Amino acid sequence: MTTPLPAGAMQPYALTLDRFIDHAAKWHGATEVVTAGGGGITTRIGYAALRDRARLLSGALQSLGLRAGDNLGLLAWNSQAHMECWYGAVGVGIVCHTLNPRLSPAHLAAMIAQAGNRVLAVSPDLAELAQALTGLCPSVEHVVVLAEPGPATPLPDCGAVRVWRYEDLLAMRGSRVTWGGFDENAPAGLCFTSGTTGAPKGVTYTHRSNYLHTVHQLQADACGLTARDSVLVAVPMFHANGWGFPFSGPAAGAKLVLPGRHQDGASLAHLINREGVTVAAGVATVWLGLADHLDRMGGETPSLQRVMIGGASVPQALMDRLERRLGVVIQTSWGMTELSPLGTAATPTALSRKASHSGRPPLGVDLLLTDADGVPLPEQRDREGRLRVRGAAVVQRYFGQDEVAVDADGWFDTGDLASIDAQGNVTITGRAKDLIKSGGEWINPGEIEAIVGALPEVAQVAVVGRADPKWGERPVLVIEACQGADIADEALLGALKNRVPSWWLPDEVVRVPAMPLAATGKIDKTRLRADYG
Amino acid sequence: MTTPLPAGAMQPYALTLDRFIDHAAKWHGATEVVTAGGGGITTRIGYAALRDRARLLSGALQSLGLRAGDNLGLLAWNSQAHMECWYGAVGVGIVCHTLNPRLSPAHLAAMIAQAGNRVLAVSPDLAELAQALTGLCPSVEHVVVLAEPGPATPLPDCGAVRVWRYEDLLAMRGSRVTWGGFDENAPAGLCFTSGTTGAPKGVTYTHRSNYLHTVHQLQADACGLTARDSVLVAVPMFHANGWGFPFSGPAAGAKLVLPGRHQDGASLAHLINREGVTVAAGVATVWLGLADHLDRMGGETPSLQRVMIGGASVPQALMDRLERRLGVVIQTSWGMTELSPLGTAATPTALSRKASHSGRPPLGVDLLLTDADGVPLPEQRDREGRLRVRGAAVVQRYFGQDEVAVDADGWFDTGDLASIDAQGNVTITGRAKDLIKSGGEWINPGEIEAIVGALPEVAQVAVVGRADPKWGERPVLVIEACQGADIADEALLGALKNRVPSWWLPDEVVRVPAMPLAATGKIDKTRLRADYG
Repeated sequence: MTTPLPAGAMQPYALTLDRFIDHAAKWHGATEVVTAGGGGITTRIGYAALRDRARLLSGALQSLGLRAGDNLGLLAWNSQAHMECWYGAVGVGIVCHTLNPRLSPAHLAAMIAQAGNRVLAVSPDLAELAQALTGLCPSVEHVVVLAEPGPATPLPDCGAVRVWRYEDLLAMRGSRVTWGGFDENAPAGLCFTSGTTGAPKGVTYTHRSNYLHTVHQLQADACGLTARDSVLVAVPMFHANGWGFPFSGPAAGAKLVLPGRHQDGASLAHLINREGVTVAAGVATVWLGLADHLDRMGGETPSLQRVMIGGASVPQALMDRLERRLGVVIQTSWGMTELSPLGTAATPTALSRKASHSGRPPLGVDLLLTDADGVPLPEQRDREGRLRVRGAAVVQRYFGQDEVAVDADGWFDTGDLASIDAQGNVTITGRAKDLIKSGGEWINPGEIEAIVGALPEVAQVAVVGRADPKWGERPVLVIEACQGADIADEALLGALKNRVPSWWLPDEVVRVPAMPLAATGKIDKTRLRADYG
Repeated sequence: MTTPLPAGAMQPYALTLDRFIDHAAKWHGATEVVTAGGGGITTRIGYAALRDRARLLSGALQSLGLRAGDNLGLLAWNSQAHMECWYGAVGVGIVCHTLNPRLSPAHLAAMIAQAGNRVLAVSPDLAELAQALTGLCPSVEHVVVLAEPGPATPLPDCGAVRVWRYEDLLAMRGSRVTWGGFDENAPAGLCFTSGTTGAPKGVTYTHRSNYLHTVHQLQADACGLTARDSVLVAVPMFHANGWGFPFSGPAAGAKLVLPGRHQDGASLAHLINREGVTVAAGVATVWLGLADHLDRMGGETPSLQRVMIGGASVPQALMDRLERRLGVVIQTSWGMTELSPLGTAATPTALSRKASHSGRPPLGVDLLLTDADGVPLPEQRDREGRLRVRGAAVVQRYFGQDEVAVDADGWFDTGDLASIDAQGNVTITGRAKDLIKSGGEWINPGEIEAIVGALPEVAQVAVVGRADPKWGERPVLVIEACQGADIADEALLGALKNRVPSWWLPDEVVRVPAMPLAATGKIDKTRLRADYG
């Protein structure tokens, strides 16, 4: 036996988020981040210059009293200044607490109180909301009004709270402090889940979890960005990190195109063509708006190759229409705030793609189907079950809570119902809490919605339960018809015959001019239940 | 101020190598690993079954006395059994010590002694070498002769050392032990650098470094494998982990095609067409052999889209010929054992690709040009300097050594000379130790080799220094002409005129029928210096 020798070692390399912007600044320094204001105005900056401004901001944030581990409140649309805030904050260990401007002031104030935000950075057009929040939130000491392209707006009057113009703050307080020096498990982000179901819960992203989410997301079969891509991030940065694109864009050296709050079809068509957008990400309704605009006004989007859709399942007819009208491949996906958010993605080049399929998990995400009690189904393929997840970027414990959010084996219960086919393709079939119990048996609204949603006349569909003295609950079908289209009840219910059990057929059809949406853009079933349940 | 709340946490997820085969087994379980024997014989197995056999092997290796942290000696070609050994070993923390069968028994014995190998797994056709090694290596207690497709071979007689047939070992000692449970910084691999320059040094790969190397390598602009790829790994697994493909293949769910020791043009052409190979990786001489075979015998390789070349720079004429003849994109790259090995890669879809360019570093690798004293060049673009590297999978300290192998700022000196253009493309211009000092000034053989190597008549080229009483050293040009081609000294030297300083022109031209190659397939400059220097 030889004497044991020291085993050798590889270099230390902390998985921190400054790596992404450092890499982009050094190897793709001239590649741009473009921000759209209204009316075709844009600002642009290269990654090298953006990194330099983010470093300046780090010193400015510290001068306002923020330290590593403190939460910076961010109430902002997708913009260059918002990205500078992210990298400026996380570079010195400050945590980005993203807030959804579409929530009510009371909701936001509760989140700000829980996070203990002392500094709030806001988009210029949200100054009024910021003013209201400073009245509700005693913790807030500074409001920073971000620089975004567009007409100058007056600063809000926030009383004793000091209000800064972003560029003034940079000029007066900016200093290039050194980044890093903290543990990769330090928190980097805080995002409260949206309030459609129960009390919002905060998910704390760490540097390590966001780094690993990024490299897993960047695999060719998931997002697969390249340095030749121009990526339109039409998913808000306050919605699960903008699906991670403000990280994966610079990590891959891709150009980022940020639409601000201008997500209407006309603005997006202009932006896509002007910036040569190749990949776009956002919920289906955004792309529906783009296709409607092109149909009305004419025009094409020849540079666009791929559109990633998540947030909610997309009807087959809409997917087919978008692929034809935009000349793109639609990449369906599934995720949630608690997953950072990527759970599964359909491969961009798969030959037979179905709208109902959400694809397979990338490396770093694992899935398990269980029964209602959390017991794993003995057969994991071609069965429906409750979907549980484990992974490098999946929540373990919510912000402010002592108990873990996972079961004894480390699985997080998503609350979704799903099936997985023999090839590993995941289909989200519904939400466990949306299930309707009729005569002691379960009805899955998701299956009814998938069939009705595939009808060409139907723009949006939802099925909710209505209390019933005899059966306990009975399903009600709510639809929003396509512009100028109509469809009779018989046709709607006829589409379901022989495809779902006869006792699943809804007792009533309700037509709404516009489906009520929650702040994240998803259908607001809580409100539908209140109105029609 | 609110009371600080617990910050929340994401799930623990150790970056260990069993993740790759677990992911492949669960989500790409039927995707195959194909091994070629001679004469068109192949064996194949799906990832699910391969994982099961690897788990069985884990118990068998433990039964032979191997424990976490011990090194398993592997002297084998690329095959299914070799992959099972890798995953079976690392799953329980055993370290894969890969050995190059083309090294001399004395070299190998020194490495085995340093690693303290008690078990040696060998390819069947290397049984004689194994027999010789057991005589030289008192630490070895067991020899396992791997199962590989081809005619049955007799077991070697290793005296007191117990010799196992692989399948017998699995059947008699196999048991499905649980994987994991060790730290992600635990060692996973050991690879000694090849012995062309000085004493071989062992690089210890860790689970974490190989995991991060894999996800960085899998970015779309580097290797970008997908689940629809069929990947021919024509780079030996004993050469810097087969460039990482036995990890990145299952991580992406790609099919792996392992050629065993059959790397001749005829075998590769057959294998590529039979297995629908889309991506291939290996040194240039392997693909030259394939192109020569197709030229002689006719035939095409229509499925093949991309060939990744590393190990040494490729002449432009050869790259052009390979792209035309094979109908592929040649992806140049640069790496070394100490980098796990990926340093830079040309993007697969870049519009203007030059053979001399090795591409850009992926996220996770950073580069610095310094002068001979290690002082960073003030200007990092369009200057030649010594290339230093930092990264997640770069050596910090060699096996058995107490001192680190990096400078005070954490940079590893590659010993390569390089320049980087404005777009970030790296060109390796030579080896610092190959520089020739003539009249007190430096001559870079790499620049001369690049120009002469671009001549269509030249297959291989090397410039070495010869001692000179007046100038100290003078360059000698050694060439191997292409099959059936010849070129006069005047034409060779004429190509250099006005492109290098006149005093760089070699004093003599030497023609060799075949360039001497080191065990890794690179030109053996040590031998050239001995013969002609």
